[in-house]
Amino acid sequence: MKHTRRLATRAFRAETGEFLAEGPQAVREALATPGATVEVFATEAGTAQHADLLDAARTAGVPWHVVTDDVVESIADTIQPQGVVARCLIPDASLDSLLAATPTFLVVCADIRDPGNAGAVIRCADAAGAQGVVFVGDSVDPYNPKSVRATVGSIFHLPVVTLRDIPGTLSRLQGLGLQVLAADGGGDVSLFDDELDLSRPTAWLMGNEAWGLPAETRAMADHVVAVPIYGRAESLNLATAAAVCLYASARARATG
Amino acid sequence: MKHTRRLATRAFRAETGEFLAEGPQAVREALATPGATVEVFATEAGTAQHADLLDAARTAGVPWHVVTDDVVESIADTIQPQGVVARCLIPDASLDSLLAATPTFLVVCADIRDPGNAGAVIRCADAAGAQGVVFVGDSVDPYNPKSVRATVGSIFHLPVVTLRDIPGTLSRLQGLGLQVLAADGGGDVSLFDDELDLSRPTAWLMGNEAWGLPAETRAMADHVVAVPIYGRAESLNLATAAAVCLYASARARATG
Repeated sequence: MKHTRRLATRAFRAETGEFLAEGPQAVREALATPGATVEVFATEAGTAQHADLLDAARTAGVPWHVVTDDVVESIADTIQPQGVVARCLIPDASLDSLLAATPTFLVVCADIRDPGNAGAVIRCADAAGAQGVVFVGDSVDPYNPKSVRATVGSIFHLPVVTLRDIPGTLSRLQGLGLQVLAADGGGDVSLFDDELDLSRPTAWLMGNEAWGLPAETRAMADHVVAVPIYGRAESLNLATAAAVCLYASARARATG
Repeated sequence: MKHTRRLATRAFRAETGEFLAEGPQAVREALATPGATVEVFATEAGTAQHADLLDAARTAGVPWHVVTDDVVESIADTIQPQGVVARCLIPDASLDSLLAATPTFLVVCADIRDPGNAGAVIRCADAAGAQGVVFVGDSVDPYNPKSVRATVGSIFHLPVVTLRDIPGTLSRLQGLGLQVLAADGGGDVSLFDDELDLSRPTAWLMGNEAWGLPAETRAMADHVVAVPIYGRAESLNLATAAAVCLYASARARATG
């Protein structure tokens, strides 16, 4: 139990290659992902309420521990009125394995600090049909419990890679023929400008919540793209800007 | 001071017609809006750091009170390291006055409960060029401090109306020639479907975070519109779904 509790810290997640999925929705996705779940902890009420999850665990041969409310509370990052938490394995996702699948639609998050934003971007990327999300620079751990929760299951749906090197990562993507589009309110091309070909293989690059992208990172992008502001708002927040950019790409890809 | 503190409650905001704008960005927007600000409370550090705001307050004839950190903390909803809070007047916005301006792009939020979402939708609506936001049903107060903060100043940029009656409001909008588009993951038309004419006068209708729109509300909409899911995500969250819908409209309106 102490082991499981310590998964709240990034260092212990890195050491063990494990993370926690909290709540019925996340546990459902975990159990639906072959080999993802080590074990499930659930309160009596949670076990009674989620017979479907108990069945899924049995079918998958995943141990299901009925524990007290206090135990679930001590493991979970938030109060879990629905009392189910899964200990899961962080999938083995490297940039090499991601790029071996010749992706044509990726999202790169540079120096993103808020776990809620990280999770929201992963969820949007999944919804828009992106094939992977790469966290570079000094970004939050996407397997942070708050981030996992904000993905609402999408953390199990697509490869999520974390690495430090920003310029090296962008160079590799460009070397594979992906255009790198940096989202930035001060960009020189509008998202809806005809000169932008969003049907091309694309990696969207999103920067830090407060300061955006460093100049040297922006300079590497094929285009620095602004979501146009039609009213008087100063900007969009990170998750909504990502949603608008990713769906502009999704739409262009769908219509050719 | 007790009066100002009580503005944390919805009932007292309704009684007084006042609300609090916290942090330099919100206070800047408040002071830039003629007649919006009653007075400003700032710590010594906040006063020193934001000489531009002090100047703006003097120019506008708005009292600026230098107070202790404890006082600012007791007023503000969050820790305000930048120590400025403005007491503001809720603008007199009614559906009548909003509709008298014959708007062609509105957002209607039905039963939205989370203040962060309410604020994020107002910010998106402002960015996308919408001319007003209407909160109907059992929605959170958009002048809640968390909502105001999430608007990042946009609460001062466009009319925000709150009223109970959902069907009456939708009927009035439709009577003025606006199509009501209900955003719903289970919608029967895709957002990117050609049969949808987003350049027409439009009111976007967003539902509750957990249960969406009640059947009778959906039934009143001209179309129930789904943001297409290209990957395996179950859905988008409210703010990102709103961003994608509102920007689809903004783009169609911009290109005719």
